[in-house]
Amino acid sequence: MIDLLKNRTTIRSYSSEDVSDELLNEVLEAGVRASTTGNMQVYSIVVTRDNERKKALAPFHFNQPMVVNAPVTLTFCADFNRFNKWCKHRNAEPGYDNFLSFMTAAIDALLVAQTVCVAAEAKGLGICYLGTTTYLADKIIDFLKLPKGVVPVTTVTLGFPADQPKQVDRLPLEAIVHQEEYTDYTKEAIDSLYKEKESLPENKVFVEENGKETLAQVFTDVRYKKADNEHFSTVLLEVLRKQGFLN
Amino acid sequence: MIDLLKNRTTIRSYSSEDVSDELLNEVLEAGVRASTTGNMQVYSIVVTRDNERKKALAPFHFNQPMVVNAPVTLTFCADFNRFNKWCKHRNAEPGYDNFLSFMTAAIDALLVAQTVCVAAEAKGLGICYLGTTTYLADKIIDFLKLPKGVVPVTTVTLGFPADQPKQVDRLPLEAIVHQEEYTDYTKEAIDSLYKEKESLPENKVFVEENGKETLAQVFTDVRYKKADNEHFSTVLLEVLRKQGFLN
Repeated sequence: MIDLLKNRTTIRSYSSEDVSDELLNEVLEAGVRASTTGNMQVYSIVVTRDNERKKALAPFHFNQPMVVNAPVTLTFCADFNRFNKWCKHRNAEPGYDNFLSFMTAAIDALLVAQTVCVAAEAKGLGICYLGTTTYLADKIIDFLKLPKGVVPVTTVTLGFPADQPKQVDRLPLEAIVHQEEYTDYTKEAIDSLYKEKESLPENKVFVEENGKETLAQVFTDVRYKKADNEHFSTVLLEVLRKQGFLN
Repeated sequence: MIDLLKNRTTIRSYSSEDVSDELLNEVLEAGVRASTTGNMQVYSIVVTRDNERKKALAPFHFNQPMVVNAPVTLTFCADFNRFNKWCKHRNAEPGYDNFLSFMTAAIDALLVAQTVCVAAEAKGLGICYLGTTTYLADKIIDFLKLPKGVVPVTTVTLGFPADQPKQVDRLPLEAIVHQEEYTDYTKEAIDSLYKEKESLPENKVFVEENGKETLAQVFTDVRYKKADNEHFSTVLLEVLRKQGFLN
């Protein structure tokens, strides 16, 4: 099983084979066994399967084709709404309308999301995360009719793989792991840790195609730009306020 | 493998058997294969193994005994510091000092954390998440010497299980999963979905031991109190500001 984790790749292209309700439920049942703060389970999962609804959802993920092409799209949400309602019906006064509680619920949602993904891969399915969820959370909230207390944090597309792509690079483990204390990165350490990544033919092509001098510039100038990040930060904080997590 | 996910339990009591560097590295290597936004890998993992350092770390997790008793404690951090340094040494201007970027990095860190946990369990290890990381992030930052751009988001203790506890309850899947749109919860739905949980002998004992009328009150009045949540929300937002994620 650890080999399954080590050898996995993200799947962006799906076969026409559907995912049965039975299989989806088995994967979701495994997911909800992930750790959850105080066993509160402060998350929800919204399933999008209907073709018309997939088409309508796609723009809120910048029209990434996986949303329409995958048989199933799952939106994982931080959710204190259900828990708060339970409290109110049980003569208990919830105090979860704050930023710490949002983080608690977001952590719950993300641990479940990743467990669902591992379970799906164990069953031969392929998955792709959509990072766009935190960019257009306001639009997704309207589309999925998420009430106060609920914020979408990530989205996963799911289906049987149409192909088996080559595994992409990762930094060496010593770039990521610190022993006992954080060791900050010198210029020499950065050069050494990013050397292999920067030397890969596919990354060199990527720099060239984007007309940049360095791979880092593809990120800062093309893919994840300061102005976009700042704009969507304002939107996301407004979402947290509106959904009742910044009191 | 899906049975492993379905049958797992959190392990809070560890045997005296150590976790070898080889085993830990194997588990971490599997972890870093989790999905990461744009393959940026904007996270770090700090390993605490030294006995004196475990004792010193424990108060920042409210002295939960797992920190001292587990052979390994892993702190998973949202980390744009390494990426920003790479950009600066490559003539690229990073724009990741904002809330969206914090969420991107936190998501990366949490998907890796959960994959490390699954890999560990596949190897016969047991794990426990410590939700206290977001409460005392400021203290953990000092202790682990985390620079600007780095925020701890969760902590996992790891070791061979000393016992095999009974699996705890979960809400039925229909409490968590919504088809196409979010269906808000009526009083009747709450009653029905929480009925089994509230009827369990261990949860009834829990209510009694805490001198409360309802299980929900144990959460609101004892375990996760409004005043604490508000206090630690202020601390956590100040941590984000200080670590450079609220510009």
